[in-house]
Amino acid sequence: MAHQPMDMIHITWRPDKQAKASIYSQIVAYFQERITSGDWVSGQKLPSQRKLAEMFGVNRSTIVEAMDELTALGLLEGSHGGGTRVANEGWAMLIQDKTPDWQSYIKASRFYPNVPTVQIVNRLEFQSGITRMSTGELSPELMQTKITQDILSQLSDRKLFMNYPDPLGMPSLRRAIQAHLKKNGIEVPISSILVVSGALQALQLISIGIVKSQARVFVESPSYLGSLNIFQSVGAQLVSVPMDAQGIAPWRTKDMQSGGTHSLLYTIPTFQNPTGCVMPASRRREVLQYCTERHIPIIEDDVFRDLWLDAPPPPPMKAIDRCGSVVYISSLSKCFSPGFRLGWLVGPEAIVQRLADAKMQMDYGVSVLTQQVAEELFTSGLYEQGVQNIRERLRLRRDFMMELLEKWFTGLADWNCPSGGFFVWIRLRNRVPAESLFKRALSEGLLIMPGGVYDKGHTSSIRLTYGYLPKDEMERGVRRLSEMLRSLQDE
Amino acid sequence: MAHQPMDMIHITWRPDKQAKASIYSQIVAYFQERITSGDWVSGQKLPSQRKLAEMFGVNRSTIVEAMDELTALGLLEGSHGGGTRVANEGWAMLIQDKTPDWQSYIKASRFYPNVPTVQIVNRLEFQSGITRMSTGELSPELMQTKITQDILSQLSDRKLFMNYPDPLGMPSLRRAIQAHLKKNGIEVPISSILVVSGALQALQLISIGIVKSQARVFVESPSYLGSLNIFQSVGAQLVSVPMDAQGIAPWRTKDMQSGGTHSLLYTIPTFQNPTGCVMPASRRREVLQYCTERHIPIIEDDVFRDLWLDAPPPPPMKAIDRCGSVVYISSLSKCFSPGFRLGWLVGPEAIVQRLADAKMQMDYGVSVLTQQVAEELFTSGLYEQGVQNIRERLRLRRDFMMELLEKWFTGLADWNCPSGGFFVWIRLRNRVPAESLFKRALSEGLLIMPGGVYDKGHTSSIRLTYGYLPKDEMERGVRRLSEMLRSLQDE
Repeated sequence: MAHQPMDMIHITWRPDKQAKASIYSQIVAYFQERITSGDWVSGQKLPSQRKLAEMFGVNRSTIVEAMDELTALGLLEGSHGGGTRVANEGWAMLIQDKTPDWQSYIKASRFYPNVPTVQIVNRLEFQSGITRMSTGELSPELMQTKITQDILSQLSDRKLFMNYPDPLGMPSLRRAIQAHLKKNGIEVPISSILVVSGALQALQLISIGIVKSQARVFVESPSYLGSLNIFQSVGAQLVSVPMDAQGIAPWRTKDMQSGGTHSLLYTIPTFQNPTGCVMPASRRREVLQYCTERHIPIIEDDVFRDLWLDAPPPPPMKAIDRCGSVVYISSLSKCFSPGFRLGWLVGPEAIVQRLADAKMQMDYGVSVLTQQVAEELFTSGLYEQGVQNIRERLRLRRDFMMELLEKWFTGLADWNCPSGGFFVWIRLRNRVPAESLFKRALSEGLLIMPGGVYDKGHTSSIRLTYGYLPKDEMERGVRRLSEMLRSLQDE
Repeated sequence: MAHQPMDMIHITWRPDKQAKASIYSQIVAYFQERITSGDWVSGQKLPSQRKLAEMFGVNRSTIVEAMDELTALGLLEGSHGGGTRVANEGWAMLIQDKTPDWQSYIKASRFYPNVPTVQIVNRLEFQSGITRMSTGELSPELMQTKITQDILSQLSDRKLFMNYPDPLGMPSLRRAIQAHLKKNGIEVPISSILVVSGALQALQLISIGIVKSQARVFVESPSYLGSLNIFQSVGAQLVSVPMDAQGIAPWRTKDMQSGGTHSLLYTIPTFQNPTGCVMPASRRREVLQYCTERHIPIIEDDVFRDLWLDAPPPPPMKAIDRCGSVVYISSLSKCFSPGFRLGWLVGPEAIVQRLADAKMQMDYGVSVLTQQVAEELFTSGLYEQGVQNIRERLRLRRDFMMELLEKWFTGLADWNCPSGGFFVWIRLRNRVPAESLFKRALSEGLLIMPGGVYDKGHTSSIRLTYGYLPKDEMERGVRRLSEMLRSLQDE
């Protein structure tokens, strides 16, 4: 079941309406080619006839005709549960008995696919006509493209480094990151800094490089990690830890009391994802002390820090860590460019060396093009300039979202005003299932994040973003959601 | 033992000779800070006093004094096997009993570190004063920096895309890759193309996404894969398959006869790494047929194709694959820029979807900066122009290397003249252990690749590159190696 989304065939091809060949014969030829070449394999499911007609912009009768022909050829077959699949027998098998059984390869491997909801969101976010209230990135409209153009123009006058980078990342970039970290109170030698392709890769490296099977990874409830399977893929177990208004409160559960071998705590103390919560300085000290005493290392994810909207947040936990207990990760993704895929990890040298070795086996390092752009971004001061611009515009968006919620969600849900980042966490009243709202919204092309993907205990919450949509779409989306909510409450 | 290289502390810090504080006190303060902050942990080994003196550019007596002070403070201790380590007891422990036992985290995780020889090479390649005859990349002198500058200048006039890319890679880049593939006879829709961070990442995704524990991965003997642990890290087993002058010959072993569940063949048919061997078209057909009949999918690694020096190689196996048996991978690393970290994988849609999902969990895709540069590189025709320039200059280097070997290695070893790529595979006569030559060369700062890292059966071979060093260094290197060889033969 978990693999199901991959059994579905996704077609990006479209018939050429200017071509001499009829639409009908183009469709037959294309499907035939995909199946006999082994590109589509036995048992994979096709989109519905209605959907195909819509995608290809043709009459449904044309699709029906083409499918009939392909079925007659033995290439397709109707399935009992409805829908059409690539055939399992007949002529197709004469060709396909030579094709490797790829689906069985997929099913036999150990890696967990993304949870289905996340797979759906990942895929739909790139389709046109979708309203993204779910997304974990800022709008293209907030991207500092002018700054990037200036940097590229600067670099086009220099002789670029194009060879393999140092396993830890280019030393000149690490020096720039070192200076950036120092502003937040983190003082480390560059040998403690590892350049990675974003915070997600840092977590991936940690999971394969220092997490053992059966280890417990403590996470905030709800947590962004709940939506990912990377720790589960190495056999570790996520354990939810309660939060209060000040953030994670490990002393409120017995689970963390004894520490436990090779356990870790993953936390986002600043503008937590998905709740937006910020740990005050006192709580940071308390959590650090609690964990240090129990020998539980902390993974501190600090990717939202520079998106403060009201006041700069307290220093990172890493800045007050005197025992090497904290591995710190951050990136350019949330505050500058999600697409650059550049982040950094700071930790004890032994850990940095280990993770660098793992990274060398995975991809030989981060693109030197991106590394050189990032270095220039930091050393030129353009990063600060860009992020300040983003903050100003994001603050207006946040305020607008609060007005919208006030207007449309009052009485239906509860929320706090986030002081940074771009998410608002909304708790639906009357235990309306967020999954139902997700599905209903999806059917209208409106994407939201249901709380269940962050933790099983949060099935009546949703995460919305104010960082992506233009004002009018944001308003339309919130209004439609409130209407759906009302109707769900009445059911 | 396998973890040993990580027990060693690597110091990039240097005392500041202009500072007011004495060198001695700077060293004591720096070491103290690293140890009490938990950055260096109990049991880690320091470089020798001689080496420290050399690195810091100070008298050995200064080092001895500083070390004595740190030992008196309980931070360091001499170890019986010689050398100095971070102390296990005393004052250090008072601080360190709060530090997580990071070494145990490393040892408990499942991921295999790189084989020690490869770790050494990875690290040393970035140190100054090292002569790299080992390396798997072209010289900076061969990099087409002018072309890259032109492209950056072009892009600096456009509004760049900076958001998260489509999980398969930007459609416009995939269309450019599609056109590039077509030149080599591979015709696929863009839904069968996945943009990756180089061929290594493609292999990593394959290993976690479609290889099950205990599966057999057949490899050429010797093979580049032998030097990597990515398949072993998921519990798969590498099985060596013999080669003859035309490449891999699966029928010469019983291992592949029965196929076997979920096995794979990994091959580099064109300019094989490390031997430089090229499969003729007939052998490609035979191997494809042999594997197809046994339901063994093929991973075809084609990264060296465009570096042909005498004549264009036969079409890829993927171009003649009618059953979807071949997953094809290639990249910009060998023929344009190793540091860009951009490659592509071509395979059945179901596999591409699965690996894209795995990639989304690992790093959310390839840098869009690099993707946009690569797209421009292909569509502008500058890629062809660059690679032609590289070929011309690489040919001269290849010819020069052949002259050198003729002059210095005749009677000591055997080799073939490679018709592409940048490696020459040298079989030492009289069973001289390549590992001994590797170590002796290393002691003089000369890096070569001993055959043992490619397969246990090739312990008297070495791989040299003619793509990296300037002529004079190449000559000096080959001459020194021949002298070492002579002396090893006499032992």
